[in-house]
Amino acid sequence: MGPGKTLWYDEQDERIGYIDETLLPESFQTAYCSTIQELGNAITTLAIRGAPALGVAGSFGVALCTRTSRATSLALLLEEVKGHAEWLRSTRPTAVNLSWGIDRVLRAVVTAQTRSEAESKALAEALQVAREDAMTCHQIGEHGAALLPDDCTVLTHCNAGALACSEWGTALGVVRSAVAGGKIVRVIASETRPLFQGARLTSWELLQDGIGVTVITDSTAASLMRKGEIDCVVVGADRITHDAVFNKIGTYTHAICARHHAIPFYVAAPLSTFDPSGNERDVIVEERNRAEIAGYPGRLTVPDTVPVRNPAFDTTPLDLVSSIITECGVYSAPYDIAGIAGKHTKTFTG
Amino acid sequence: MGPGKTLWYDEQDERIGYIDETLLPESFQTAYCSTIQELGNAITTLAIRGAPALGVAGSFGVALCTRTSRATSLALLLEEVKGHAEWLRSTRPTAVNLSWGIDRVLRAVVTAQTRSEAESKALAEALQVAREDAMTCHQIGEHGAALLPDDCTVLTHCNAGALACSEWGTALGVVRSAVAGGKIVRVIASETRPLFQGARLTSWELLQDGIGVTVITDSTAASLMRKGEIDCVVVGADRITHDAVFNKIGTYTHAICARHHAIPFYVAAPLSTFDPSGNERDVIVEERNRAEIAGYPGRLTVPDTVPVRNPAFDTTPLDLVSSIITECGVYSAPYDIAGIAGKHTKTFTG
Repeated sequence: MGPGKTLWYDEQDERIGYIDETLLPESFQTAYCSTIQELGNAITTLAIRGAPALGVAGSFGVALCTRTSRATSLALLLEEVKGHAEWLRSTRPTAVNLSWGIDRVLRAVVTAQTRSEAESKALAEALQVAREDAMTCHQIGEHGAALLPDDCTVLTHCNAGALACSEWGTALGVVRSAVAGGKIVRVIASETRPLFQGARLTSWELLQDGIGVTVITDSTAASLMRKGEIDCVVVGADRITHDAVFNKIGTYTHAICARHHAIPFYVAAPLSTFDPSGNERDVIVEERNRAEIAGYPGRLTVPDTVPVRNPAFDTTPLDLVSSIITECGVYSAPYDIAGIAGKHTKTFTG
Repeated sequence: MGPGKTLWYDEQDERIGYIDETLLPESFQTAYCSTIQELGNAITTLAIRGAPALGVAGSFGVALCTRTSRATSLALLLEEVKGHAEWLRSTRPTAVNLSWGIDRVLRAVVTAQTRSEAESKALAEALQVAREDAMTCHQIGEHGAALLPDDCTVLTHCNAGALACSEWGTALGVVRSAVAGGKIVRVIASETRPLFQGARLTSWELLQDGIGVTVITDSTAASLMRKGEIDCVVVGADRITHDAVFNKIGTYTHAICARHHAIPFYVAAPLSTFDPSGNERDVIVEERNRAEIAGYPGRLTVPDTVPVRNPAFDTTPLDLVSSIITECGVYSAPYDIAGIAGKHTKTFTG
């Protein structure tokens, strides 16, 4: 199930392939980045988006610039790659996975003794990150599926699906695994202003799988909860600090409303999303551009001189989270974020 | 302050003038309805909208069809007018004010002894409804202004401003009266999906008055509350039953989030909005069309085969409402909705 690979490394032509998510659901098109600048642009415009996918993209990006560099020595290569990596890291500051994926490959590259070793190590580690991401999503799906009732309606926000990962998805991975295991699951996708990832992407990918999905405006969720039409909320995460979950703007609202109606609120995220030393107040929340709010082609919705605010993420304190679903299992309050994150180090790099 | 009259009766040409709100903020244009069908169409397309304005529109509509009828007897006239009135009533089922305004003029018309008396009574009563609406908004403004801190930021949803009434506004009337009284008030306008009345209308009318306003997506409000950037919420209402406030979809979410952050949540509405014998579960909530959610000209945001739900209103139980601000004063829990509504009968029709 799922639309297949969301992004991949094309070794033959030394380029990164991806589904251009800005064009969905009207048009399914794949595209390629041959330079790290093109990759950064695809990330900034959200052609590539979703925390786990950004981890894979970061890895692929470091591999790409390592393998396409014209540097004349290993030392110059490392200097160039590190510079590009820092720039790529800055393209989306809030999701920790981007940095995590970049650092995974950087760490492999700096151990190389020769230029060709750097190139092969970079690619091998990047492909390993992508394989782990896919495996991780399936494990999250299995663990999370057990939490869902046998016949239920799940509210999700934004897109934490196959399109946000290399495949399968985190929040939607939970739905997919539950359906694969024989449960009846209907999904309510909140449209996710301003860029409609819920309306455009979540509905599209569930449609491919034949999983029933209905789209609502973000503000309609509470009303459906009041009517008893939502059994639980499952969302992804862009960063989990010791005190809060960072995710697409609107997540916090769903968490508050879920608590108000005594509905479980689950976060499904790989351990690469964890930032145990981070504090909510210290994380930079990306403020995106005015145009995303102020209208659409041919239509102005906000007068030109009226200011807008467009934070891409909000923060949900952990006390509103019923459980966090990871590849290593399901955790509930009180959360030991550092302890959970430690399992990751042990599994993959210990 | 305010953009002046939102709708008016043009006696010379026997037609109803209004600001076409579908064109704001790009274009300020007035338009006219010469038949009740045109008026119904203007209401259905939300060119005329807002609960108090619908009350005035209902009154004007009954006056218009009384005065332009070609019925050859008083009996036939009354029959025709009643038929048109029932049709007009059905154009927006949730806001009680539309019915209320229609009934005010119908009651005047049926007492007429002659055809010309019916015409003059209809117009006199409709103009009286419009005058009362303007006066009522100013009274709501005065009562509500006392609740606002001297220097504060108010969140409002949709447009409960001059553009929702004949002038001044209810929720925005409170803001205007506070500013007129020397208070410093900044407004956060949530954009109000799907039709952006907050982004388009609230920001536009406050801009005309020089009152500072910032537009956010509906889902950003909770995040600002968490940061301490919102001091209170003030919204309008389309109907207040003995157990709940019906207002634009998204209001309930703001109410839950306000309660979660211990922020006052105020409803500003004329007594004509009260429906004390109504129950939340019995009121028809208008479900609007798919196109409002599924995209915009030139862009599809929801795949064609994915269902959407588009209720125009939600319901906020009274226990989440800190105070209801009316023309007769400010009321707090426990609410005696029938008792408050009774003051209206006494004031205007007793």
